[in-house]
Amino acid sequence: MSEPPGFHMSPDEFRRRGYEVVDWLARYYEEVERYPVLSPVAPGDVRAQLPDSPPEHPEPFDDVMADLERVILPGVTHWQSPNFFAYFPANSSGPSVLGDLLSSGLGVQGMLWATSPACTELETLVLDWVVDLLGLPAGFRSDGGDGGDGAGGGVIQDSASSATLCAVLAARHRAAPDGDLGGLVAYTSTQAHSSVEKDVRIAGLPASALRTVEVDDTFAMRPEALAAAVEADRAAGRRPFFVCATVGTTSSTAIDPVPAIADVCERHGLWLHVDAAMAGSAAVVPELRFVNDGLDRVDSYCFDPHKWLFTNFDCDCFYVADRSALIGALSVLPEYLRNAASEAGAVVDYRDWHVPLGRRFRALKLWLVIRHYGAEGLRHHVRRHVELTRELVGWIEADDRFEVAAPVPLNLVCFRHVGGDDANQRILDACNASGALHLTHTRLDDRLTLRLCVGQTHTERRHVEAAWARIAARA
Amino acid sequence: MSEPPGFHMSPDEFRRRGYEVVDWLARYYEEVERYPVLSPVAPGDVRAQLPDSPPEHPEPFDDVMADLERVILPGVTHWQSPNFFAYFPANSSGPSVLGDLLSSGLGVQGMLWATSPACTELETLVLDWVVDLLGLPAGFRSDGGDGGDGAGGGVIQDSASSATLCAVLAARHRAAPDGDLGGLVAYTSTQAHSSVEKDVRIAGLPASALRTVEVDDTFAMRPEALAAAVEADRAAGRRPFFVCATVGTTSSTAIDPVPAIADVCERHGLWLHVDAAMAGSAAVVPELRFVNDGLDRVDSYCFDPHKWLFTNFDCDCFYVADRSALIGALSVLPEYLRNAASEAGAVVDYRDWHVPLGRRFRALKLWLVIRHYGAEGLRHHVRRHVELTRELVGWIEADDRFEVAAPVPLNLVCFRHVGGDDANQRILDACNASGALHLTHTRLDDRLTLRLCVGQTHTERRHVEAAWARIAARA
Repeated sequence: MSEPPGFHMSPDEFRRRGYEVVDWLARYYEEVERYPVLSPVAPGDVRAQLPDSPPEHPEPFDDVMADLERVILPGVTHWQSPNFFAYFPANSSGPSVLGDLLSSGLGVQGMLWATSPACTELETLVLDWVVDLLGLPAGFRSDGGDGGDGAGGGVIQDSASSATLCAVLAARHRAAPDGDLGGLVAYTSTQAHSSVEKDVRIAGLPASALRTVEVDDTFAMRPEALAAAVEADRAAGRRPFFVCATVGTTSSTAIDPVPAIADVCERHGLWLHVDAAMAGSAAVVPELRFVNDGLDRVDSYCFDPHKWLFTNFDCDCFYVADRSALIGALSVLPEYLRNAASEAGAVVDYRDWHVPLGRRFRALKLWLVIRHYGAEGLRHHVRRHVELTRELVGWIEADDRFEVAAPVPLNLVCFRHVGGDDANQRILDACNASGALHLTHTRLDDRLTLRLCVGQTHTERRHVEAAWARIAARA
Repeated sequence: MSEPPGFHMSPDEFRRRGYEVVDWLARYYEEVERYPVLSPVAPGDVRAQLPDSPPEHPEPFDDVMADLERVILPGVTHWQSPNFFAYFPANSSGPSVLGDLLSSGLGVQGMLWATSPACTELETLVLDWVVDLLGLPAGFRSDGGDGGDGAGGGVIQDSASSATLCAVLAARHRAAPDGDLGGLVAYTSTQAHSSVEKDVRIAGLPASALRTVEVDDTFAMRPEALAAAVEADRAAGRRPFFVCATVGTTSSTAIDPVPAIADVCERHGLWLHVDAAMAGSAAVVPELRFVNDGLDRVDSYCFDPHKWLFTNFDCDCFYVADRSALIGALSVLPEYLRNAASEAGAVVDYRDWHVPLGRRFRALKLWLVIRHYGAEGLRHHVRRHVELTRELVGWIEADDRFEVAAPVPLNLVCFRHVGGDDANQRILDACNASGALHLTHTRLDDRLTLRLCVGQTHTERRHVEAAWARIAARA
């Protein structure tokens, strides 16, 4: 019999091509500083270089790798460049990428414990490890911190957006078990991530059901304004049910006062969720554990190792103090998923902890990262980013042409040229067009503000120095 | 200065360790048939072999790989074994795993075109390719099939569950732009995937807002029952808005009559979504394009290359005929994401096409798969799975002790021993305990029914033969 078209790749060829891809990535890491950080392509440039229709016949792997180099790479913005200071980082590391490769390669589904027990058990274990690693409340551990059968627990989600959606859904379930959403009201600050609004809308609440509470001059939620808003809503017969506090806002890493917000939530029986998407990783450093203040009084919490803990996207850690509302909101059990282990209640079935049913073995990469670095390694690198950021703050403060525009509790500096929006826009555009670094902006006090976040895995002092030199030279 | 604890992995070490992981996976693929397909571990077995706390100091990579072999592998159910016939497949392939490795390694974010243009443009292109590859309606192409600026388009989501959620949200937005959900009613069949119920609940509708329409003796939705339900709801003043039809139900691959359902939807202005999670891939084979019947009249459609198109999880392709309702439902634009390309309307920003904000470069793996196999290769392998399934049906029909329990349009056989539920449970348990194959069950006509799905990448005739021999021997 003749060979069929489009052979499967044999293990031998997988080995050979796998080496090539590993080599390509290793070379990419060696050379990443040579590429313009922000891709300079114009809309349509990438697509225009590729065929408009799929190939009828198999194509050689070499051709794909050539197109990767020729077409794809110029269209990539290099999030893994040490000169990437834009948005929040999506940092990564060798052990994480290899852990993810193992996940892809094993190709198991972890929707139920029974569909691949190690996928669930390693995830539960690693999420418990993270509680210890960051000094999070013991109640977030699956065993309550005492080896028992705790009410809380953690799960890996794809993103903080999705985790916050699950928090909204769990809160909604607790507040309105009968499904009547009339009058429900959620609260977050004016500086909260856009996903809070998106999540509240997804959950079926009208735009008017989300109150954006005003902030103080550090851009942190004012708890007395929250309390006033909640009281006004209650007085009007509405039903406050959910507060999302942010630890480290996207705009400026403002830190909402979680303990004071928890006072309000406890007084009124509101679900309190904390979104610490980037900032949460800071807690690996003991002297930065102010980011954990009040977490022992919240209902749910999330942060993203895929932002600042050297674990490639996607890896959000989502914790609940009591899993029952979450599972109550999301559990649906069809016959074809029934199995003895689940029926016995002896296992966790993570499909009930998030929106999708299918799930990959994401714990592997986080497990590899924690074991590769150890707690001391993670501490060292995160601490180093914060030190570099403080140095940068000193340089900005020493330059009369610039001002720091917001408190810098961690690794993001918001600053601006004193010459106004146009001057800042010119600096931003010139820096990004140079290819030497990538910055983004925000608006604070209605003024265009530059943001520089130090969090890429390989960012060292020399990169921050060069970035500042270039910014200052454009001033 | 002494070296810091927990070094980053250098490119050289990444190369060396990357080779090791590739070797480990290649060996895994060579040896996968030696492992029990369904993991035999008991709850807690995996965790009990690992430390309860994270390591303070870095650990050697060799130790992690040793634990992978010693602790993790025995706890894995081998979805990539050719003897895996359970649930639906989550098939994969070498080019896909390597494409996913490139995605992990490049570590870019594709939330906006501007955050990495190639990530968005390749995704749009590959999703357009898939329209051609499967013979889907041209209106699903981003250019409307005529190179213009089409209203439709595709996006990669993590799962059909999430895609269907987005369909519900887009439909809800179209039907209730003011956010008043009162009286909205959704419809699906009694055989639809559990995610439809989950998605409707997530969207804020009460359980009573989902009607499960009865099915005919092929387990396909009865369109006249749908019409009657819609009419009764309208007569009662309720607001029908959404229908989810299934092409290839999870239980038995029943195929809802999409054209007749589209008649009802058009008559009443309902959003019609088609969930073809596994079955959609069949359309790569021209003679199986009955799975596409009526798709030119639907509002949205999804199928999973991560089930039956050799692309590892997660990769769901979600198409809309008109993107405006989807984007209207999901778009929120904060200052820190504003950029010139988006403002100019010249680009697609996929963050508005799904729940999460962040997104990885998932198009790479699908691109590598399509180029590696070519259309003819994909056709060959999918066709082969269906042929093997038909052979199996013949063997079952030739054995008096067994009966086929539902039509077999594609690659799933539902069958049972004539001896009743206990006999079937014994066969199921014995087969799964043998380690030689993995089957799951469903209930049809309230009788325990065995399911055998042929879709793993490396399943050949000998594997199906051996599976049947073992089943028959247990009868």
